[in-house]
Amino acid sequence: MTIDYLARHRTLLDQALAACADRRHFSGWPENPSSKLHGEDVPAAGKARFEDLLGRPFPLAQPAERGRIGEEVSPYTCEPLGISYPKVDVPALYAAIDSAHGPWAAADPDTRVGVCLEMLARCGEQLFENAHATMHTSGQSYVMAFAGSGANALDRGLEALAYAHKAMADVPRSGRWQRQFGRDGVADLVKQYRLRPRGVGVVICCATFPLWNAYPALCASLATGNPVVLKPHPRAVLPVALVVSACRAVLEEAGFDPNLVTLVADTRAEPATQELLAQPQTAIVDYTGSPVFGSWLEQNCPGKLVFTETAGCNSVVLESTDDLAATARAIAQSLCQASAQMCTSVQNIHVPAAGVRVGGELVPVETVEQALREAVDGWLAEPRRAATLCGTLFDESVQATVDACRERAAGAGTILRDSTGYENPDFPAARTATPLMIAATPDDADWYRQEVFGPVSFVIRHRSADEALEDATRNARECGAITAHVYSTDAAFIERAIDAYHDAGASVACNLHGMPINFAAAYSDYHVTGLNPAGNACLADLAFVAGRFRIVQAKVPAAAPAEKKTG
Amino acid sequence: MTIDYLARHRTLLDQALAACADRRHFSGWPENPSSKLHGEDVPAAGKARFEDLLGRPFPLAQPAERGRIGEEVSPYTCEPLGISYPKVDVPALYAAIDSAHGPWAAADPDTRVGVCLEMLARCGEQLFENAHATMHTSGQSYVMAFAGSGANALDRGLEALAYAHKAMADVPRSGRWQRQFGRDGVADLVKQYRLRPRGVGVVICCATFPLWNAYPALCASLATGNPVVLKPHPRAVLPVALVVSACRAVLEEAGFDPNLVTLVADTRAEPATQELLAQPQTAIVDYTGSPVFGSWLEQNCPGKLVFTETAGCNSVVLESTDDLAATARAIAQSLCQASAQMCTSVQNIHVPAAGVRVGGELVPVETVEQALREAVDGWLAEPRRAATLCGTLFDESVQATVDACRERAAGAGTILRDSTGYENPDFPAARTATPLMIAATPDDADWYRQEVFGPVSFVIRHRSADEALEDATRNARECGAITAHVYSTDAAFIERAIDAYHDAGASVACNLHGMPINFAAAYSDYHVTGLNPAGNACLADLAFVAGRFRIVQAKVPAAAPAEKKTG
Repeated sequence: MTIDYLARHRTLLDQALAACADRRHFSGWPENPSSKLHGEDVPAAGKARFEDLLGRPFPLAQPAERGRIGEEVSPYTCEPLGISYPKVDVPALYAAIDSAHGPWAAADPDTRVGVCLEMLARCGEQLFENAHATMHTSGQSYVMAFAGSGANALDRGLEALAYAHKAMADVPRSGRWQRQFGRDGVADLVKQYRLRPRGVGVVICCATFPLWNAYPALCASLATGNPVVLKPHPRAVLPVALVVSACRAVLEEAGFDPNLVTLVADTRAEPATQELLAQPQTAIVDYTGSPVFGSWLEQNCPGKLVFTETAGCNSVVLESTDDLAATARAIAQSLCQASAQMCTSVQNIHVPAAGVRVGGELVPVETVEQALREAVDGWLAEPRRAATLCGTLFDESVQATVDACRERAAGAGTILRDSTGYENPDFPAARTATPLMIAATPDDADWYRQEVFGPVSFVIRHRSADEALEDATRNARECGAITAHVYSTDAAFIERAIDAYHDAGASVACNLHGMPINFAAAYSDYHVTGLNPAGNACLADLAFVAGRFRIVQAKVPAAAPAEKKTG
Repeated sequence: MTIDYLARHRTLLDQALAACADRRHFSGWPENPSSKLHGEDVPAAGKARFEDLLGRPFPLAQPAERGRIGEEVSPYTCEPLGISYPKVDVPALYAAIDSAHGPWAAADPDTRVGVCLEMLARCGEQLFENAHATMHTSGQSYVMAFAGSGANALDRGLEALAYAHKAMADVPRSGRWQRQFGRDGVADLVKQYRLRPRGVGVVICCATFPLWNAYPALCASLATGNPVVLKPHPRAVLPVALVVSACRAVLEEAGFDPNLVTLVADTRAEPATQELLAQPQTAIVDYTGSPVFGSWLEQNCPGKLVFTETAGCNSVVLESTDDLAATARAIAQSLCQASAQMCTSVQNIHVPAAGVRVGGELVPVETVEQALREAVDGWLAEPRRAATLCGTLFDESVQATVDACRERAAGAGTILRDSTGYENPDFPAARTATPLMIAATPDDADWYRQEVFGPVSFVIRHRSADEALEDATRNARECGAITAHVYSTDAAFIERAIDAYHDAGASVACNLHGMPINFAAAYSDYHVTGLNPAGNACLADLAFVAGRFRIVQAKVPAAAPAEKKTG
């Protein structure tokens, strides 16, 4: 290989490693698409590149193409994107991957890490087209897509790569081993240790954050020597296809076979996942999506490594606060952001029915509910801000969920805040819905103890704050939770809450104000604990990477190492 | 906790960490039981303690005891040991474990590592009684039992503990995270990270090396916060019971509940494994034993972490050598050692039918076979050395295997060296068998491509050395291999062989002479690759430990951390 990519990106890798070690804020890419930072031309060029892709076959020359498929529809225009992708003959593709694999498996770990760093860098150069692609597939707003599917996702990729590097660096390349055996036996051996991949890594991406696990899974598997097949959601192929294109270009430039990274697009009518799982070479599966399929994967892929990130019913326990308006604003932002289609969106808000203590004074629960409702309305008051915050519903099914919940709550007279569409200033046809808030009690547990995907939340009145905490933590343990929040001015309650969530296998944030509480920071927040039903893997820790490769060794007498001619 | 065990054993841990990093020779315990090192009293006292245990209930006060069981028979005397162990009501035991778990899970990782170090130290103080216990259950010779079930096994435990320490130390206890969000949002958070165990670790030990995986699995699971249940083979309970006793004493002394380490003995008629696996709290399974049950475990424990070390058909490829007698001696020692009941014992010796080049001259294959046969006879010539090297057959079933192979080979006229008993100078009733060597060709592949457990080996004539290599590596890939050896003076052949074994997912040793080639060194040899059917786990690497714990976090505003009274 002529280009030393690791040297080119060494500083970035070292910064990531340092951030992982002390968990400080770090980002390798810009989160803000503003033309004040990027100038007018770069964003415009990215948009133009996105528009060029519309209405025609996506330029991806992979082997085993058997026609074209594509069924993406923009949630902003409700029109098909008209892009087609290779329909892949999976066994034929795997044959091509088999041929590609050898030199990559044999390459030095540093070489592979360098190539992955270059891939992330190239993906960082297509943030603008990627933002438009994400927007018109997953339905995120442009600003959200630029950050969430851009810097935030790339950072997760770099974080996973840093861990892969660390785990591989833990295995020395060689060692010298000398000892006596009894009186006569003397051993003096040179030992060489080589890392070997496990097989093909299949990455199943979700519709609403298509790159959020794609980058980390790609980096973790590829850096450790495993070819990667990306299987996007049929509704959000384009962002993944852009990544696959960039990776293949880098592989070719680096002198490797581009089939080490491939795309297998599919349709809802003809899903490809089972066929990918059935290939004997598939050794690793990374999955983000629904808890039902995630848990099926965990139970039904014996002998394969399975990493899942799914969902649960994320909770807030609101016991007391110094500033009700600020607390309500923080929670309401979570209910609005990305139309609550994030894995970190709050669904269940647990409150004591007797009221919430605010600055020492007991405020009735109705007032609290009103504050939450008003805070949501506040976020939505200005149409452009509403559009940036809420984005759209990625799919009709989300609207159907909202409608079903509305009907049920209306029948019970428990709608706290009704959901309507909001006017998107740029896209009149956009599929939008503002938060539906439902008043609930523990009698509604069957309803709120499942993930209701989309902008639907429950304000659950409990007999006490401790009962609220007990319910929220039981739900985390039994139904899953990726995030949990506690608001309390009582240090003892906070301490109990932290212990209770931890005992339930959940992480918890306390008294977060003045920032988007959905935000999970690469290098700092261990995302998904693996201890509750919301997934079995963590972005990112050593366990996310250490099993993706194995170690083989050769030992030879030091006097006559293998390199030396002895015959 | 009043005693700082980590401080007490810090040097030992640091030495182990350093050895893991540079793979040099290191051992924390003596391998040699000689009274020149230990004096007369210490060995005698150990033997006396062992003899005290015979013929009565083993002193182990565990909850959920429902009577006593025990069916150990000494392979040296062929008499029952007469020791009984608690017959455990598994659900009741798990209830006791549940009660024990909390403070251990909450303890600082350093505290847990320290307690595990102290456990290893205590086990190191009972090496002599453990050697006798191992001898009279697993059938190893006294010298072998002292080292193999003593220092060598303890070192594997310390090695696993060092990796557990390293993996846990990779997670900082806390971090400070500060960033801007847009114009107004400022976040300044203190994040606390806590490690959480997964559940109960069940360790299933084998009959012939009962502590070889017991120490590493115990240390890896326990240090990371998981209670451990040890399930010994019904024929080799005593060595494990001694360890459990020592661990429980340390736990009590350290102020923890002793039920964090428990013994579940069973009988062949009423095995306990399935009931242990069925407990929902069982989250981790470590297994050493037969490939059939190992692979069943790998396929049938969805959602649990399963670590297996089983067996395959370990091979030698003998292409050429400078010293045929020395090579034959090295291989023959493997055929004899512990009556080839080791996971590293050679079974299949692949040779070119046209002969082996020795110092530049082609030696006929018959001469090579004769050299191997004579080398075996050489190891056995002196009765006391034969006894030390071969030990006994741990069980009647091994003799039955030898007998069945003798009959089949005799029928085919392919016995190269017949197996007989040998006279054990100290134990006339000992169940002994010398190596049975069988002449074979690739037509016998169905026979030699399975593990034949016990002192049975095949000398397989191939059309060429390359065909020999091809067969040996195919068998490693398809049937499993824990060790593989190549003897060649041709550097190009050695290089091909290393690549071929590595491609087959196997490690390989080249031209080992003058040392026991079965020896796998803790801190230096990665034992089991996980890439072929001989097991999915490695002693020890980060993957062996990193998944045994998970991370939960709490984040609070830096201005008002959880410790501080704010209410």
